[in-house]
Amino acid sequence: MRMMTNKRTSGRAKRVVIALGGNAILQRGQKGTYEEQMKNVMETARQIAEIIERGYEVVITHGNGPQVGALLLQMDAGQQLYGIPAQPMDVAGAMTQGQIGYMIQQALKNELDARGIKRNVVTVVTQTLVSADDPAFQNPSKPVGPFYDEETAKKLAKEKGWVVVEDAGRGWRRVVPSPDPKALVEAEAIQNLVENGFIVIASGGGGIPVVNVNGRLEGREAVIDKDLAGERLAETVKAEVFMILTDVNGAAINYGKPNERWLGRVTLEEMRRYYEEGHFKRGSMGPKVLAAMRFVEWGGERAIIAALDRGADALEGKTGTQVVAR
Amino acid sequence: MRMMTNKRTSGRAKRVVIALGGNAILQRGQKGTYEEQMKNVMETARQIAEIIERGYEVVITHGNGPQVGALLLQMDAGQQLYGIPAQPMDVAGAMTQGQIGYMIQQALKNELDARGIKRNVVTVVTQTLVSADDPAFQNPSKPVGPFYDEETAKKLAKEKGWVVVEDAGRGWRRVVPSPDPKALVEAEAIQNLVENGFIVIASGGGGIPVVNVNGRLEGREAVIDKDLAGERLAETVKAEVFMILTDVNGAAINYGKPNERWLGRVTLEEMRRYYEEGHFKRGSMGPKVLAAMRFVEWGGERAIIAALDRGADALEGKTGTQVVAR
Repeated sequence: MRMMTNKRTSGRAKRVVIALGGNAILQRGQKGTYEEQMKNVMETARQIAEIIERGYEVVITHGNGPQVGALLLQMDAGQQLYGIPAQPMDVAGAMTQGQIGYMIQQALKNELDARGIKRNVVTVVTQTLVSADDPAFQNPSKPVGPFYDEETAKKLAKEKGWVVVEDAGRGWRRVVPSPDPKALVEAEAIQNLVENGFIVIASGGGGIPVVNVNGRLEGREAVIDKDLAGERLAETVKAEVFMILTDVNGAAINYGKPNERWLGRVTLEEMRRYYEEGHFKRGSMGPKVLAAMRFVEWGGERAIIAALDRGADALEGKTGTQVVAR
Repeated sequence: MRMMTNKRTSGRAKRVVIALGGNAILQRGQKGTYEEQMKNVMETARQIAEIIERGYEVVITHGNGPQVGALLLQMDAGQQLYGIPAQPMDVAGAMTQGQIGYMIQQALKNELDARGIKRNVVTVVTQTLVSADDPAFQNPSKPVGPFYDEETAKKLAKEKGWVVVEDAGRGWRRVVPSPDPKALVEAEAIQNLVENGFIVIASGGGGIPVVNVNGRLEGREAVIDKDLAGERLAETVKAEVFMILTDVNGAAINYGKPNERWLGRVTLEEMRRYYEEGHFKRGSMGPKVLAAMRFVEWGGERAIIAALDRGADALEGKTGTQVVAR
């Protein structure tokens, strides 16, 4: 694998959009207390500060799966116990942007201050535009919220217009569309902040899904993949590098089979072949690989998929999967 | 009352920070459904767009009382029914910033677009710095969250270190400190966006309370008055006018008495006398008047207290209470 450095003889520092996976905030088996989450976020902030210290300009996005899942359950419980109306999913998504953005911006600012790096961190509440004609709206597939018995599920489906499906023996659950992100509504604000040296946290949880209906934005109850939205963020800020940090150190072909092979440096063409051959799991590594390919197709220098704690080394080309044009 | 206009022979448009009261989002007697809240927010957006159309530069802050109250109950219910750990109040505050910021930024953008005004609206997740030595931390007084029976309340107090008090026959309730806001942590990002023509929503719900502990920011379970925080926002963006919109059209002396008198144009000195004479209710009109006085003391041209639907006229000096230096 080719070594890369961030040294440049001229021009601005390399700009990297970092898409943080759920494990950056909450780890498998944890309950989701504030203390657990803040501890993880502080460790993540150290990783990001390390990258900033090496001279990169950083823009951050993050997942929100466990947090929005918890919030939907809390809203369901609040309705049952106290009769408080549950908010729709777009609002719940906006709430988790505030929640996680706050934790990251505080922890990262503290970490940067401790290192004597005078930079400000700011979270932008972000709406992500999707097409009202996206076929996902006709085929909701992403399970969200609590499990119900069949009767309750069907009653809710009737009352609220939900689509519900049976989830392999665990009960019934609501499914929502997962449309493809087209653009970030707050693009100009994000660009402005990034150009002025702020470290921006944006499109958290894939952004709040909105559609344009006769010139007006409207929220939709849907879930946008955070890596695909992160790729739009990388386009928005004209990043050189788009880096997806997750719980595995890259993408593998023949994953879990005897001939499994982890990918290092790989061209767009090669990656597209693997993708079309079905090597990457839908709803898991699939969208990450798709997002990485999109970024390089758009004109990005490099897209990286790596483990959270290997981010700094992956940026220098030392580890992880590195997708390049050729 | 002197007529005022926003026509200026030179320089930039007048900048006004608008602090929206709870009624801008949820009205008394409403349950808090998304539909109710969005309808109110759309009406508020029309008021604000009218002000922007008249040539003012607008920066927005808002309360979050009913929303954070609902969220604390939802978290309590989520803990009881599903065992989901409740998040602390600073996180809950951050969540409502995402929630309300999203609704306002979407509704206002739609309203501006419909009027052919090409401006972007953006919500900045805002931490508000308070002093760790603020006497409020020794004297928590602001009731939050659900009512409990005495036994449960005392158990929770012991387990979680809460202060609980009996609330006039309605049961026991947690009380939290309401410290005085000193500064907004995200001040530079807010300034940058405002200077570049963005309509910024910031310090929602008074901002997320943080203290500086040996150079590190840490969240605190507290509630910051949104008008006092809004005044810091007005200082931050060097506003000419700070306008508090609420459910009454100004401040009154001898409120509710036969000799009640609503205040129109009033000097800082006069207002301070009324304030010290105890004309304004603590936790209600009191902090609004205090915030208005602070703004004029700081050097602001005018601070206004007016009804939500009278904002545009109040800005032109036609209605509401107008606090001026002399």
